[in-house]
Amino acid sequence: MEITFELGYALDTFYFLVCGALVMWMAAGFAMLEAGLVRAKNTTEILTKNIALFAIACTMYMICGYGLMYGGSDWSLFLNGIVGDGVTGVAGEPATYAPSADFFFQVVFVATAMSIVSGAVAERMKLWAFLTFAVVMTGLIYPLEGSWTWGGEAVFGLYTLSELGFSDFAGSGIVHMAGAAAALAGVLILGPRKGKYTADGKAVAIPGANLPLATLGTFILWMGWFGFNGGSVLATATVESANSVAVVFMNTNAAAAGGTVAALVLARLMFGKADLTMALNGALAGLVAITAEPSTPTPLLATVFGAAGGVLVVLSIVYLDKLKIDDPVGAISVHGTVGLLGLLLVPVSNTEVSLSGQIIGALTIFIWVFAVSLVTWFAIKLLLGVRVSEEEEYAGVDMSECGLEAYPDFTGGRA
Amino acid sequence: MEITFELGYALDTFYFLVCGALVMWMAAGFAMLEAGLVRAKNTTEILTKNIALFAIACTMYMICGYGLMYGGSDWSLFLNGIVGDGVTGVAGEPATYAPSADFFFQVVFVATAMSIVSGAVAERMKLWAFLTFAVVMTGLIYPLEGSWTWGGEAVFGLYTLSELGFSDFAGSGIVHMAGAAAALAGVLILGPRKGKYTADGKAVAIPGANLPLATLGTFILWMGWFGFNGGSVLATATVESANSVAVVFMNTNAAAAGGTVAALVLARLMFGKADLTMALNGALAGLVAITAEPSTPTPLLATVFGAAGGVLVVLSIVYLDKLKIDDPVGAISVHGTVGLLGLLLVPVSNTEVSLSGQIIGALTIFIWVFAVSLVTWFAIKLLLGVRVSEEEEYAGVDMSECGLEAYPDFTGGRA
Amino acid sequence: MEITFELGYALDTFYFLVCGALVMWMAAGFAMLEAGLVRAKNTTEILTKNIALFAIACTMYMICGYGLMYGGSDWSLFLNGIVGDGVTGVAGEPATYAPSADFFFQVVFVATAMSIVSGAVAERMKLWAFLTFAVVMTGLIYPLEGSWTWGGEAVFGLYTLSELGFSDFAGSGIVHMAGAAAALAGVLILGPRKGKYTADGKAVAIPGANLPLATLGTFILWMGWFGFNGGSVLATATVESANSVAVVFMNTNAAAAGGTVAALVLARLMFGKADLTMALNGALAGLVAITAEPSTPTPLLATVFGAAGGVLVVLSIVYLDKLKIDDPVGAISVHGTVGLLGLLLVPVSNTEVSLSGQIIGALTIFIWVFAVSLVTWFAIKLLLGVRVSEEEEYAGVDMSECGLEAYPDFTGGRA
Repeated sequence: MEITFELGYALDTFYFLVCGALVMWMAAGFAMLEAGLVRAKNTTEILTKNIALFAIACTMYMICGYGLMYGGSDWSLFLNGIVGDGVTGVAGEPATYAPSADFFFQVVFVATAMSIVSGAVAERMKLWAFLTFAVVMTGLIYPLEGSWTWGGEAVFGLYTLSELGFSDFAGSGIVHMAGAAAALAGVLILGPRKGKYTADGKAVAIPGANLPLATLGTFILWMGWFGFNGGSVLATATVESANSVAVVFMNTNAAAAGGTVAALVLARLMFGKADLTMALNGALAGLVAITAEPSTPTPLLATVFGAAGGVLVVLSIVYLDKLKIDDPVGAISVHGTVGLLGLLLVPVSNTEVSLSGQIIGALTIFIWVFAVSLVTWFAIKLLLGVRVSEEEEYAGVDMSECGLEAYPDFTGGRA
Repeated sequence: MEITFELGYALDTFYFLVCGALVMWMAAGFAMLEAGLVRAKNTTEILTKNIALFAIACTMYMICGYGLMYGGSDWSLFLNGIVGDGVTGVAGEPATYAPSADFFFQVVFVATAMSIVSGAVAERMKLWAFLTFAVVMTGLIYPLEGSWTWGGEAVFGLYTLSELGFSDFAGSGIVHMAGAAAALAGVLILGPRKGKYTADGKAVAIPGANLPLATLGTFILWMGWFGFNGGSVLATATVESANSVAVVFMNTNAAAAGGTVAALVLARLMFGKADLTMALNGALAGLVAITAEPSTPTPLLATVFGAAGGVLVVLSIVYLDKLKIDDPVGAISVHGTVGLLGLLLVPVSNTEVSLSGQIIGALTIFIWVFAVSLVTWFAIKLLLGVRVSEEEEYAGVDMSECGLEAYPDFTGGRA
Repeated sequence: MEITFELGYALDTFYFLVCGALVMWMAAGFAMLEAGLVRAKNTTEILTKNIALFAIACTMYMICGYGLMYGGSDWSLFLNGIVGDGVTGVAGEPATYAPSADFFFQVVFVATAMSIVSGAVAERMKLWAFLTFAVVMTGLIYPLEGSWTWGGEAVFGLYTLSELGFSDFAGSGIVHMAGAAAALAGVLILGPRKGKYTADGKAVAIPGANLPLATLGTFILWMGWFGFNGGSVLATATVESANSVAVVFMNTNAAAAGGTVAALVLARLMFGKADLTMALNGALAGLVAITAEPSTPTPLLATVFGAAGGVLVVLSIVYLDKLKIDDPVGAISVHGTVGLLGLLLVPVSNTEVSLSGQIIGALTIFIWVFAVSLVTWFAIKLLLGVRVSEEEEYAGVDMSECGLEAYPDFTGGRA
């Protein structure tokens, strides 16, 4: 082989691996964010969920998810992780980077989608019910959805999204809104936490136990998102692709900044205080909003898109509470509402994308993931039950599910 | 274009982006360090400050800071982020890496300078006063200072620092001492925390609420510093530049190690105990000390320079307390006193740099940043007030400024 | 020089530096993991140990460790860090990447080995006794062991491990089991914590104070391990080496996932609850198990190897408690028992490695490190004492050793 080909192959591979490691790091971000936003008595359980769902996602995607998503329409690679080596025959040809690097980058994405779910159903769901759902979501629901979007397959053989002008660069819809749709289905099956809404329908604030953790989680996600969006250029070894990756890093950062400032100012105006949790959700909303197209806006436009996400997330959180959709960490608003916004904003800066294509794509993703998730959650409810007992919920799920307090020296069993 | 040019361009771009992501990560380090070193009742506010200042820094530098710092002397690129695309025309030509990567790497530096300020004014400053200062600092004070140093412009058209033999590789003075100068001005306007000094002038220890967070923050900064110093070589795609980047990584690590050990041993000798917070400040001091020239010392000399920083920071913290300059996290000592040390040490290992140039450069940076910051803080004091009421300070700024306790389940409102 | 040579040199150098930064980051992982698993009253001290041991490791390896390990058999480079520049003459020739990058990557490995020790001896050892051991371990014990394995020297001139078919890709034995052997020696000299075992020999659970920290530490280690294993390919600038690095990243992740799931399920079966700390140790066990050979298994096999580690670590933790070997964080099981497993699994997927060679290598590493550590700990016991007084242990070592509580606002002195 040409030495210059080898160098380009090596650089692209290394770029995928570094970006993938950053996306893996987002799992820690979700874990810290969620652990910081729940009460002390439900912390061990949410941590257990987060590390276990990541492990399950990696294993299921290895066994069947990757083959389903990128193996083409004939399902011959369905159990490629078991009957094959999990990689060969799935990653595209001719390879300009290592097939295993492609797998590694993809596998951490599915974990991200699943991480979104855990926060929304926190503080009341049975641990093993959740992990059962994780198996289905990461082995089947997300990979099939992914096969229609990034995989390029026709949706049930009927229509092909890319041909309709649909584009979702790094997954505002494909990953984030998909995760939120699964979460919404779970929340509807599950119902709100005891005491979250008063008899006359008002939402009661239930403060998170550890805001430094939540802030750390947000910073981790911010950092990891450079890999999430930056890696989605899928190449970096040419001037053109390197420029694109650089623009994506710059705009991803700008959008997060815009989201933070907008949410903080809006929260100040609406609630009279500089609400940190809204600033954090604003940062994440900015990131979700730019994820569908971080490569074409100017940094000013990226900041504005991020700010739009930051405004929308505050309004969405307030509105979902009016609907009594109880989402302890705001995941459905951050990833769902703003994920949709991200999809709809793409045509503003990318003229090759059509608004109708974005709408059809958003509907396809949402309907599929939401409907199948609803059925799955319902089946799990019948089989295992999804909700802990009222007593367990009151005492906190840490003791009943995990047998361990998260902070035994601080709470003295009273958290 | 030549394929080898493309590969070098791509590698240099990716190197800038990875280093920039590491510097962005330092924002999390400052947030955790400061959140760990303040009392529980002031934690939410310092977290809010940290994420908001990062967002403001990124936005202001995009709007005008980058154009001011690197746009040359004619101010034509002042609002390049709004009237232009924020990047084109500013980044140098001919480009050997993506212009947006240059912007991304520079934008995270300004956030670092601003992060230094937040810790020093903690536990008593009004949040919105602080954020107002952040706008001026990141949009104007730092970029103009940067235009005279890394930007190569003459200081008010009078003298050019590089011509006087001034050199500050990654910013011991340009970033760290500059941040400390702004912090010092703020602290002087603000005054010490209530109860910090007794009537007869003794300093009262006010322990931080969460030392694991402070330690985590230090490790994050240590890691992020590889990007801060390593990226400041500004190229890596040749043997010579790659060797330089590698030396910088090695020496940055060595200096941090030297600072840790020296501060821990000195604290043991002075106070009789292995004071963790001094060890942490020692690590950071070692990093600041090497930042002005990490590319020329041997690893042994880098360790010694770091150790000198570690010794100096302990003495500086003790001495500033004697002057009743109340800096809850030691930021002025770590970044200011040791930042100056870093500048003065450069001629020891780099014979192309003159001590007189270093002194003139240090004075230029300090006088400019300190004086303009003092005026700015004073103007903010008149307009908004800078200090919370005595009652709010006693109760903690978390409730009055943010409306949220950081650890509601642990402190029961009593922290 | 050829431009293509320069590009390959630059890419390999950058790859080493990025991987090295990730391994440095593991120091934060150990610090958080251990701080989360000890009681609040012993937290400051374990944090101090962790940052200080890292600093000592870097300094000692610079002074003499690197020269001992890779300088060849004539000891001429023994104090190369002081009489030479610490690097020149040690790093192999002809160089295809920066010599300083090699040093940087190696120096963070020795810190990892030492980090393993601190958790096992937590909550009862004198701080300065521990740091004295760190000097010997990182300056002498580990480097000599390393000279026989990665350094290729004959063991006391008698036999050469590589010639016997021994292979340990990234250090399941060379780093992890070595650290565990030193820890075991320390624990035997030190004895168990007061109250850990009842009069009739039952182990009493002593819960860790901060499980989010422990979880964060595990995620940090998981991320850092990509650098640990990925960097151990030692090159990435060709198609072949890039493919190998990619496989290593993929398999490292898969093994961690397998270990997490297996340990969680086994803990559920054995104890009836989803024990988070077992899941965390399972993840780490999966990582240790794959470290001896991450480049040859399929991802399915890597998952299975990881799961074997996850099962073994749970059994080992339970069994060591039966032997009254008190290891507060499970480090001896994770790194020692599973490190041995990792070595023994290599021949399954790598036919060039012999089981007998692995056994001889494991014995060589264990006997050397354990025996010399035992002597060293014993000498320290005579000179300084190794254990705090019963009163200090009861009150917590934070106040007696460091003079600072880790969480003064949460525990009110009662933790």
